[in-house]
Amino acid sequence: MTSENHSFRELSQMATNLIPSEIIRLGNEINKLIKEGHEIFNMTIGDFDPSEFPIPTKLRNAIINSYNLGHTNYPPAHGMLELRQSISEYILKFQNLEYSTEQILVSGGSRPLIYAAYKTIVDPGEKVIYPIPSWNNNHYCHLSEACPIEISTLPEQFFMPSVVEIQPQLKNAVMVALCSPQNPTGTMFSKDSLYSICKAILLENEQRKGTRKPIYILYDQIYSQLCYDSNIHVDPVTLFPELSDYVIFIDGMSKSFAATGVRVGWAFGPESVLNKMRAILSHIGAWAPKAEQVATAEFLKDIPEVENYLKKFKGEVHERLIGLFDGLKKLADDGFPVDVIKPQGAIYLTVKFPWKNYRKPNGDIFTSQSQITEFLLKECHWAIVPFKAFGDDGESEWYRISVGTIRKNKIGEMLEFLKLGMKKLVK
Amino acid sequence: MTSENHSFRELSQMATNLIPSEIIRLGNEINKLIKEGHEIFNMTIGDFDPSEFPIPTKLRNAIINSYNLGHTNYPPAHGMLELRQSISEYILKFQNLEYSTEQILVSGGSRPLIYAAYKTIVDPGEKVIYPIPSWNNNHYCHLSEACPIEISTLPEQFFMPSVVEIQPQLKNAVMVALCSPQNPTGTMFSKDSLYSICKAILLENEQRKGTRKPIYILYDQIYSQLCYDSNIHVDPVTLFPELSDYVIFIDGMSKSFAATGVRVGWAFGPESVLNKMRAILSHIGAWAPKAEQVATAEFLKDIPEVENYLKKFKGEVHERLIGLFDGLKKLADDGFPVDVIKPQGAIYLTVKFPWKNYRKPNGDIFTSQSQITEFLLKECHWAIVPFKAFGDDGESEWYRISVGTIRKNKIGEMLEFLKLGMKKLVK
Repeated sequence: MTSENHSFRELSQMATNLIPSEIIRLGNEINKLIKEGHEIFNMTIGDFDPSEFPIPTKLRNAIINSYNLGHTNYPPAHGMLELRQSISEYILKFQNLEYSTEQILVSGGSRPLIYAAYKTIVDPGEKVIYPIPSWNNNHYCHLSEACPIEISTLPEQFFMPSVVEIQPQLKNAVMVALCSPQNPTGTMFSKDSLYSICKAILLENEQRKGTRKPIYILYDQIYSQLCYDSNIHVDPVTLFPELSDYVIFIDGMSKSFAATGVRVGWAFGPESVLNKMRAILSHIGAWAPKAEQVATAEFLKDIPEVENYLKKFKGEVHERLIGLFDGLKKLADDGFPVDVIKPQGAIYLTVKFPWKNYRKPNGDIFTSQSQITEFLLKECHWAIVPFKAFGDDGESEWYRISVGTIRKNKIGEMLEFLKLGMKKLVK
Repeated sequence: MTSENHSFRELSQMATNLIPSEIIRLGNEINKLIKEGHEIFNMTIGDFDPSEFPIPTKLRNAIINSYNLGHTNYPPAHGMLELRQSISEYILKFQNLEYSTEQILVSGGSRPLIYAAYKTIVDPGEKVIYPIPSWNNNHYCHLSEACPIEISTLPEQFFMPSVVEIQPQLKNAVMVALCSPQNPTGTMFSKDSLYSICKAILLENEQRKGTRKPIYILYDQIYSQLCYDSNIHVDPVTLFPELSDYVIFIDGMSKSFAATGVRVGWAFGPESVLNKMRAILSHIGAWAPKAEQVATAEFLKDIPEVENYLKKFKGEVHERLIGLFDGLKKLADDGFPVDVIKPQGAIYLTVKFPWKNYRKPNGDIFTSQSQITEFLLKECHWAIVPFKAFGDDGESEWYRISVGTIRKNKIGEMLEFLKLGMKKLVK
């Protein structure tokens, strides 16, 4: 019905110019190929195969029990009190931070909370700083008519932003959106690096005090339970308690407990901000289902059970990350055109296929990133997401691998397919 | 932290000026009173007491089964295909309308879909027509910066809007938000009345064709399964199939199957609009939980089971509506200051307490609606929502009673408390 030839719009400007999620689009395309019978290793979605990564048994049983007890009516708009109590204790246990139940907001997954934070903080035309690559900040800026300040990051810095790039932009911004461990890179802030960024924001806010809207930090730590080796999760408020008025934390069950379809997320931060986020989300109605809230409350307060699950779960994710990392590293050492960054956190691996000086078997040179993506898909059976989907210009040869849907016993075969594909390339 | 004395805002303009839901606020207040030990008949929330109104047993068992089968990962962004298939068949069965799976969008309840429809259609400053009283349209206008055109309705017309009030405003608007059976009034469109409104919109759109954004109809039919006596649910597309490009239907499990906490809603309408709504909601992330989607797909296609549940459920809701209606009517006949409208649909009863010429026991005259609300709460144990919460000016003496949380065997006692309270009033 909508025609491009009109001098008017059939729909709103925001909707007309909206870009659907690249990852979801790619994911749907690949599912179609798989349904048609192609064997494809689908590593595009930041999700889990439930047969490889089930949710905690205790959580599942508690959800079932909640349904049997008839927890089927509306939850309160900011989440059930017992859940917010459990979350408060969970934050104290794992981050040693004190947040009251009034500073915690529950939602149907974490995305609604990010959206609500944007809408609560940012007026149309105001500036938001975020790194490239990063997850969905470009979309949240579009939805809230924010003006993006995109910070390019470097592979040498594991694609994490640093104070050097952020500091000069601070005076223009009202929000800095950070994520650690970071989607899409699987890397994370060191204490020193986050310290420098927070220090700069603190100084900027001191200068603004009483004269301008302060800078807020949207701190997405949905992967904070998934840190590997000696990497430790750090956060702005632990480093600078005086930042607590300005930091909105995003967290939830989706990634730490393989519960993406269960739809329980939470935010915590200053009560004045959280109250507004709650009001917005009460109208949008993006609430977590009630039985799942009751069950999550019960599960989270059982710390031994939580730790038990996380230990096994982290081990399984890390095994896949390291298995792929080692295999890719070996291919690189053997002279194949591939580069890879050692995973530090989350469920992602950052890999480069620098094929732009190579020729395909038919003699054609790779002239674009999308041709590389297509070759990976068709010749190597690898479905992965180019950094383009995370805001990078379309020509980066870097990709995100998500390991939550990988079977351990398939890793060898996957690497073999990739090797066979790369053998067809001609310098 | 936020101070009112600043010349700048600490938060966004939209958030700063946001009005939290009146009903939720009132509900929280009453829950507090109840927790303190007061006996209060809480009829404020459009919700169900699960012990009185459990969800269908088959639905509950299917959710439990879905969890046991491990349906815990991300659902597709527009909802699971099998669910959209079931919804398509359900629409065909109950409305005789043909909508394909691509014209259906699933979300975590129905509110996110209403929000997405506003954001998809309406540019900031554009006009939306809706009746007063109506549910939450004032809030959706604020959230999307739409300009409200509020249509006052009359008790003689059962508080439903008519073409007489709507037609003169059409030339200015891009959307008309209608709801039938209507929240908060428990009344609904007759075929003739909706026909006239739709005809006027059709004519307006014919005049605009190719020159201006058309008028869309947001048609909230979340209560369409709950019609009583000879009242039959009508909709714009059944009356005028040529309106199908302009009608966005809102529906879901919440009210027809007492499943407000299960969070499964759906919209259907023109694919171009639904695609944009899907893109918006994929970023907001307001998805229905996966296990509940799988289960709803299974339940909805079992038409005998659906009809069986509805028959009993409708009977139970209607019994409460009629029990209260009859009792209130009798009080009116006996000379007490109360008026009531016969319920036609939904779970609501519209009642008037015209006390402004009466005096309280202490001799004070009622000078405001809020004093009436307070007297009802404190002296009659009745917690109900004034039409103010539905956009009416603060002084209407009309109220919404929601019967989903009422116990049948308490109706006599409730009426007795009310009568005792009213006996204290002095003309």
